[in-house]
Amino acid sequence: MNAADLGLPVDVPSTALFTDQYELTMLQAALRAGTADRRSVFEVFTRRLPEGRRYGVVAGTGRVLDAVENFRFDAGVIGFLRDQGIVDESTLEWLAGYRFSGDIWGYPEGEVYFPGSPILRVEGSFAECVLLETVILSILNHDSAIAAAASRMSAAAGGRRLIEMGARRTHELAAVASARAAYVGGFGATSDLAAGFRYGIPTVGTSAHAFTLLHDSERDAFRAQIDSLGKGTTLLVDTYDVAEAVRTAVELAGTDLGAVRIDSGDLLLVAHRVRQQLDELGATGTKIVVTSDLDEYAIASLAAAPVDAYGVGTQLVTGSGHPTCSMVYKLVARAESADPKAPLVPVAKKSTGGKTSIGGRKWAARRVDAEGVAEAEIIGTGPVPAELADRQLLVELVKGGEVIAREPLDTVRARHMDARAGLPMSAIQLSRGEPVLPTQYV
Amino acid sequence: MNAADLGLPVDVPSTALFTDQYELTMLQAALRAGTADRRSVFEVFTRRLPEGRRYGVVAGTGRVLDAVENFRFDAGVIGFLRDQGIVDESTLEWLAGYRFSGDIWGYPEGEVYFPGSPILRVEGSFAECVLLETVILSILNHDSAIAAAASRMSAAAGGRRLIEMGARRTHELAAVASARAAYVGGFGATSDLAAGFRYGIPTVGTSAHAFTLLHDSERDAFRAQIDSLGKGTTLLVDTYDVAEAVRTAVELAGTDLGAVRIDSGDLLLVAHRVRQQLDELGATGTKIVVTSDLDEYAIASLAAAPVDAYGVGTQLVTGSGHPTCSMVYKLVARAESADPKAPLVPVAKKSTGGKTSIGGRKWAARRVDAEGVAEAEIIGTGPVPAELADRQLLVELVKGGEVIAREPLDTVRARHMDARAGLPMSAIQLSRGEPVLPTQYV
Repeated sequence: MNAADLGLPVDVPSTALFTDQYELTMLQAALRAGTADRRSVFEVFTRRLPEGRRYGVVAGTGRVLDAVENFRFDAGVIGFLRDQGIVDESTLEWLAGYRFSGDIWGYPEGEVYFPGSPILRVEGSFAECVLLETVILSILNHDSAIAAAASRMSAAAGGRRLIEMGARRTHELAAVASARAAYVGGFGATSDLAAGFRYGIPTVGTSAHAFTLLHDSERDAFRAQIDSLGKGTTLLVDTYDVAEAVRTAVELAGTDLGAVRIDSGDLLLVAHRVRQQLDELGATGTKIVVTSDLDEYAIASLAAAPVDAYGVGTQLVTGSGHPTCSMVYKLVARAESADPKAPLVPVAKKSTGGKTSIGGRKWAARRVDAEGVAEAEIIGTGPVPAELADRQLLVELVKGGEVIAREPLDTVRARHMDARAGLPMSAIQLSRGEPVLPTQYV
Repeated sequence: MNAADLGLPVDVPSTALFTDQYELTMLQAALRAGTADRRSVFEVFTRRLPEGRRYGVVAGTGRVLDAVENFRFDAGVIGFLRDQGIVDESTLEWLAGYRFSGDIWGYPEGEVYFPGSPILRVEGSFAECVLLETVILSILNHDSAIAAAASRMSAAAGGRRLIEMGARRTHELAAVASARAAYVGGFGATSDLAAGFRYGIPTVGTSAHAFTLLHDSERDAFRAQIDSLGKGTTLLVDTYDVAEAVRTAVELAGTDLGAVRIDSGDLLLVAHRVRQQLDELGATGTKIVVTSDLDEYAIASLAAAPVDAYGVGTQLVTGSGHPTCSMVYKLVARAESADPKAPLVPVAKKSTGGKTSIGGRKWAARRVDAEGVAEAEIIGTGPVPAELADRQLLVELVKGGEVIAREPLDTVRARHMDARAGLPMSAIQLSRGEPVLPTQYV
C-alpha cells in the first residue's frame, strides 16, 4: 500500500519512527552478536483486565496491519538515525532494506479477550520482529481501551443510538482512532470529520451554544439553523430557558422538527419534561438527544428516560477510567541458532519481582457449554485438543510479509456484537467483577 | 509553513478535518443568515482543575500554531465534504478559500493556569474562529494533561533525571505529543524516536528482556550489548536473578559500566541492594535506573533510595489519572452586526443546568506578594488596574493570521520551571488540595 492510499488527512510515509530507541540498539547488538536472525515468536497479551472489567475488546488490528506495511526506513529516517548516532552504519544499511517478511496471527479484530489471551503473535527473525513492538503496542493498547469503553456503553444503551463526540478531549489523531474503535464497540456515528474521511464512519453534527449566542435571539438562531439545515435538524435547547426554547423550536420548525439536544442539567428530569412538552405540542416524532458528561453508568441510568440518542465525549475517548490497556509484547520462543531449521525453545522472564510470563508459542480457543455460551478461555502450547480444534481464536493476518486479512469495519463491528453476545449474560453487567471467563492453561 | 516543514514522520497536509461536523454546519447556517462575519471573541478556559490538582500547565500552544497555519481545505477535503453532503456549495466555496486572518492571544506555553484562566483567546469573524474549536481543544486538552502530570513527576524527582517511555501505552502520534509535553513539564529525554525526529528531544534506550532471552545466557546477552554499545551502556538486570546479573555485568564491563536498569520488584529494596553490591564491586560510578509502573507518588517514595534516573511510561502518557483537561472554547463576545466597527457585546450561556460562563473579552494577571510569590490569578473584562499592568499573562501569538510567537521547546520548558517556582511552595505537594492560587474576577 502506498502512503497515499491510507487516505487519512495525515499521510503516513513511514511508521518506522513510532519506535522506542531500544528496539534499534537491540537490533544493532544482535546483528553484531550473530543472534539477530534467530527465528523468534513474540506474543501480545495482557496479564490482567483493567480493575473490575469483565472482558476486553481487541481493536486496532486493521491499523496494525497498515503500520506493519508502512514500516520502512526511508532516506529521511536513516539520515536522522545517522545524525543522532543512534545505531552504526551496518545497522543503518540493514534498516534501509527492512521489510517485514514474517507471519502474524491474531485474534480477529472485534473479538473479546481475557487475561493471558495471545491477542497477536508475530513470527520471523528476532531482528524483524523486535522492531515492531512499540507501534503494535501503541495501536492495540489505545484502540482496545477505547473499544472496551464503547462496548460497555453500547450494552448500556440497549438499542439506542450512540454518537462519538470526544475529538476535542483527546489528541487530534487519537481522536480518529477513537472514533474507529468506538464504531467497533457499537457506536453508530461520530462528530469527527477525519474519521468519516479515513474510515467511512457516518458523521453527524448541527450546532453548539456559540451559534445561539452569535445571534440576537435564540429565535433568530433557530430560524437560521432551520433555514440552512432543514426542519429535520437537531436544535440545541439549553442556552437560555429549555421550556421556552422547545416552544420556539416547534413554533418555527413545526411538528416535523427532527430532534432537540440537551447538553446540561439533570438529564433524566429535563428529558422527561421536554418529552412531555414536545408531545403536548404535537411533536411526537421529534427525538431527544442528550450529550452531557455521559459514561456507561449515566447511559444506563437514563434507560427509562425518553431519550433517543446519546452523544458521548470525554469518557469514551479516555476509556471510561482506563485510557490504556496493559498489553505487552514478549519474546516467548526463539531458535537456538540462526539455522532456519533450528527448533524453537520457549523463553520467559523468571525473576521474582513479578512480570513473569509463560514461555512457548501459544494457541487459544474458547470453550462453550451445551447451550453454546462461552465458559472458558483455553490457552496452550502443546497440541490442540480435538474438541477445541474448531473453536480456535487465532487467525492468520500476515503471511510471509503480505497482509492477507484486511476487512471492512462493519465486519469487525458485527464480529464484536456476536462475540459479546456469546458471553455469559453477566459480561454486560456494569458492576465491577472478575473476568467473565476464566483463563485455563492446558 | 509547508506541510513538509513540520518534519514529523507524519506529514500533515491539512488539519482542517480534525474538526467536529457541527463547526461546518454552523458556518453554513451563519453564512446564510448573514451573521458569519460578525466579529467574535472565543476563549479557551477550564471551569476546574482535575480533582485535587494544585495547578495546571499550558502545553501544546506551539502545536496549535502549526495546526492553525495548516488549517486549509484542499481539493481532497472539499471533495469529501461534497460527496458526503455535509455542507452546501456556497459553503464549500467559502471553505476552499479559508485562511485564518484573525488574532490569537494566549498564556505563553509552559505557563501555569487556574480555573477560569483565559488560556487562549481567538478573535476574528465568527466563521473563521468557530472552525478552529475542535483542533485547538484536542491539542490543548491532551498536551496540557500530559504536561501537568510531567510537572508533578519532575517536582517529585527533585533534580534526578526523568525519561519518558510511554509510547507503547498511547496512540502512536499522541505518544509524540506526549514526549513533547513531558519535556515541557521537566522530563529530560524520551524513548520515542519520532519525538526526537520531530522536536529534537534527546532520545535514549538500550535493551529489553527480549534481548536477554534471545541469547543462550544472560552473560552472552550482556557481552553482546557491551560489545555493541560500549561499557557506558545500561544493562537490564532483572530477567533472572538480580544479584547474579549485577555480578556478571560488572565482571564483563568492569567498574566503568554506565548503568543498570531495574524494571520489576520492590524498587526501594532492590535499588538499595544493587547500590550496595555495585559499590562493593567497585562500580561506584555505575548509575541505577528504575522503570516499573512509576508515577509521581512512586517517584517521591524513592527520594531516599539510591536511584539516579526514573523511566516513566503509562502514568505519564495517561496524565496520571487525568488523561484530559476540561478545557472549553466559548464565544464570549461578538459584534451586533457584520460592520467591522460594530461594538462587541458580551455573551454567555445562561440556562440553569450548569456549564455557564462569564461573557466578555478577558485579560488576566498574576498578582504577587511582597516576596514576589504568586498569590492570586486576577481576571477581568474592564480596564487593567495599573498595579497589574506589567503582570499580564496573555501574549500575542497570531496577528492578522500570521504566527508571530514561535519559540524553541527549551524556552518553553524553562518558562514552566520559572512559573512553577513562582507559586507558593504548596503547589508541588502531591497531596490533593485546592488550586494553589484563588481566581479573582475584577
